Amino acid sequence: MLPFDTLIPIDKSSGLPAYQQVTHLIIKHIRNGVIKPGLLLPGTREMAGILKLHRKTIIAAYDELTAQGWTSVIPRKGFIVSEDLPEIKPKQWDKDTTGYAFNSKMPGPFYPINKMGLLTPAPDTKQPNLIVDDGHPDSRLAPMVQLHREYRSRLKQQHVVKQVSVTLSAGTPKLREAMVTYMAQTRGLQMQTENILITHGAQMSIYLAASLLLKSGDYVIVGEPGYYVANQVFEHMGARIIRVPVDKHGIDITAVEDACQKYPVKALYVIPHHHHPTTVTLSPERRMRLLEMAEQFNFSIIEDDYDYDFHYTSSPYLPLAAGNHHNRVVYIGSFSKALSATIRIGFMIAATDFLRQAIYLRRIIDLRGDHVMEESLAALLSNGDISRHLKKVNKIYCERRDYLCTLLDTHLKDVVHYTKPDGGMAIWLVFDKRYPLSEISVKAAKYGLFINNGKLFDSPDVHYNALRFGFASLNFEEIKEVVEIITKTVN
Amino acid sequence: MLPFDTLIPIDKSSGLPAYQQVTHLIIKHIRNGVIKPGLLLPGTREMAGILKLHRKTIIAAYDELTAQGWTSVIPRKGFIVSEDLPEIKPKQWDKDTTGYAFNSKMPGPFYPINKMGLLTPAPDTKQPNLIVDDGHPDSRLAPMVQLHREYRSRLKQQHVVKQVSVTLSAGTPKLREAMVTYMAQTRGLQMQTENILITHGAQMSIYLAASLLLKSGDYVIVGEPGYYVANQVFEHMGARIIRVPVDKHGIDITAVEDACQKYPVKALYVIPHHHHPTTVTLSPERRMRLLEMAEQFNFSIIEDDYDYDFHYTSSPYLPLAAGNHHNRVVYIGSFSKALSATIRIGFMIAATDFLRQAIYLRRIIDLRGDHVMEESLAALLSNGDISRHLKKVNKIYCERRDYLCTLLDTHLKDVVHYTKPDGGMAIWLVFDKRYPLSEISVKAAKYGLFINNGKLFDSPDVHYNALRFGFASLNFEEIKEVVEIITKTVN
Repeated sequence: MLPFDTLIPIDKSSGLPAYQQVTHLIIKHIRNGVIKPGLLLPGTREMAGILKLHRKTIIAAYDELTAQGWTSVIPRKGFIVSEDLPEIKPKQWDKDTTGYAFNSKMPGPFYPINKMGLLTPAPDTKQPNLIVDDGHPDSRLAPMVQLHREYRSRLKQQHVVKQVSVTLSAGTPKLREAMVTYMAQTRGLQMQTENILITHGAQMSIYLAASLLLKSGDYVIVGEPGYYVANQVFEHMGARIIRVPVDKHGIDITAVEDACQKYPVKALYVIPHHHHPTTVTLSPERRMRLLEMAEQFNFSIIEDDYDYDFHYTSSPYLPLAAGNHHNRVVYIGSFSKALSATIRIGFMIAATDFLRQAIYLRRIIDLRGDHVMEESLAALLSNGDISRHLKKVNKIYCERRDYLCTLLDTHLKDVVHYTKPDGGMAIWLVFDKRYPLSEISVKAAKYGLFINNGKLFDSPDVHYNALRFGFASLNFEEIKEVVEIITKTVN
Repeated sequence: MLPFDTLIPIDKSSGLPAYQQVTHLIIKHIRNGVIKPGLLLPGTREMAGILKLHRKTIIAAYDELTAQGWTSVIPRKGFIVSEDLPEIKPKQWDKDTTGYAFNSKMPGPFYPINKMGLLTPAPDTKQPNLIVDDGHPDSRLAPMVQLHREYRSRLKQQHVVKQVSVTLSAGTPKLREAMVTYMAQTRGLQMQTENILITHGAQMSIYLAASLLLKSGDYVIVGEPGYYVANQVFEHMGARIIRVPVDKHGIDITAVEDACQKYPVKALYVIPHHHHPTTVTLSPERRMRLLEMAEQFNFSIIEDDYDYDFHYTSSPYLPLAAGNHHNRVVYIGSFSKALSATIRIGFMIAATDFLRQAIYLRRIIDLRGDHVMEESLAALLSNGDISRHLKKVNKIYCERRDYLCTLLDTHLKDVVHYTKPDGGMAIWLVFDKRYPLSEISVKAAKYGLFINNGKLFDSPDVHYNALRFGFASLNFEEIKEVVEIITKTVN
């Protein structure tokens, strides 16, 4: 007889009922060929003795196996393993997907990931101790304790939790109401709750806007260099991307006008505060001109104002969406920068009709967000915690920016060049061609530092050898350590 | 002179710097026409006196206004409001979206929402006290305190929080590893971390699978009646939907075969446990046959096994994805049912190549999930909290189901008919045609009860006058109250 006691070990601390464990293990052994077709299983009483289980448990397991077709009942003999098993080997998933007939050609670069799902700048990267991100906030400073206190208190309120079942995908009403006030106070935006959609991060708002505005073959204008993930969205829609230079005042509006005269442009994607990646701010004059051109050439503007809340030396400029927008602007922002990259709450502001379509699309993509978290955020917006936090971190981030600049000027003067940004969380750091970032990132990995390989922002024609150095999430000590490691890699 | 002290009230408790408040308010009044072009603003010293602010604050505000083009400096006179203002009226967002040239015709029904973003079964609905959802768990029973304890402890670990910046969108490695074990133990699925993608709810997995498998004009088979949000996804892809009857053993496989012989079917969407909405379980024989047909007719299977963890009288059947799947199955599930509808963590399991494309697409849709929450869930999976919780709630939900059935048999015998489901969180409750749910839902709303109007599951040709009565999220008292209200509405 097979050693059933070792083949079928029961884990009493597991949450799974014992009869299910028996069932699953027997199926597993049948599949693996350990228990063969035609085998007569021990009687229920005998098996109960072997496995030290109640006989009823074994009866339940055998019944289950029979119901699923793995065993058959032979009257007066017992249960035998079926001869005509539907499947006799364990089914692994292959690497090749011969089975699916699917669209396997996703546009855009596909970054290599290792087994752990991590982006790999180089094959020998260890799990890094230090990470240079491309502009994340320092969540150690964020009012996460307050946020989670609000969250916990709401978990006990059944009507809040149950609201998800009747609320559509626009976001929780309390957060949308709090946003009306907050957007008016901070950005001069005049709107109603009907104009706001809460999304799972700002990225989802970009995806929704692009889905609604662009179809295959349509023209869209973006800044170059630009935010590659937005470009990938436009490519996914099949849009034709017109790349327009970005100078120190933002996107080049003469080039935009030229493009509009040549092509029937459907949309323009613009990052007015701290253009991604170069961190420049779009000047007020250009903002006005873009709004006029949108009307003149009949295109829509996707305004991705992810960095509005972070300014160190001057006030931010009001959004295009606060200006003469002619219902042509889709305004996008996020709370991930104010709090933590893990808090995935973004928003879209647009005219009602457009927004209703976006709500429909958001719903079929992911139904809705975490409404309890949304209501918790609403509380922090209303009680001023978010504004106070922003005031505090603007001061700290400004100091970190200055500290990083000092270190760069001292240790990497001949290696990098940059323009100190007015705000935001990153410096656009261009490395001299003698120091390829592809090599630096590999060397840095050996010191436990992750920095990207400088290829993220490359367009088909240009290699920048540059990265966004996110200084906001690193304290002085960490900034110092990072610069020291980079200095080692270039010497 | 204008009453600047009342026009420009400064809120010292606000987080916004005073100079920004002054700037924004002056811009607001210029826009509203209160402060006219050509007006000479009070000198900085005078304005500081009026507003009881430091003179430096006023200088900063005036400089900012000038930088933004709202005022100009007249040497030796001061600051005047610019004559050539780019915009002079406040821009509201219109209802009509004349500005956007967008695809305004979303497919499928668009449910009316009221100003609060709530689905309105009737215009006079108050915010409901009681809600009958379509099968949500009772989050009051879920280990949310444990989950949030894990969350808080991770917030302090910078490397966990920072991991988001290097981790791609597949989900946190710890959760994917925990899933490999959990899926093998509970579902007999044999796979690696490379086969798992964590998504923002199961809905996102459906959207991703449909995006990859279907293009405009492709045929997809679904059960009828069926899960309307999945159907809306397929419609959005431009797919042609073939509706196949669902009987008490699940989707009708003869009808599936007929359809495959007539049309080049690309995909089949199946809900094996507790078909949505009718709650029937797909029999093991039909599972085998579907897998064979997928190979024979060259289609892929989207297996939406949202209800696998909830069985009251028997063990669940193993998924199609655990069988002879020929790399043709995309297996989809969620933790929203195990924990709370607010926890939006779903997953997709498929062959590696397919999954990598899904990861790419997920990334451009919403970058990633909340990795801290994902790691917290991983901890609860690994320490057995989830399994123990499921064991506990299966007992409680079973009792709630039985209690509801008793009440229905007692009070609504002639009004509704239903088949008691083996598991899951809802009963498919068909109302007699004499009692239209459209009327019942309106009446119920007056008693503070939200139930849907029975139209959600209608196909173009069929009106079911039925709803999914989610019993799991209601305790005995609440179930009793709901049945009492429904009873009142039909008498």
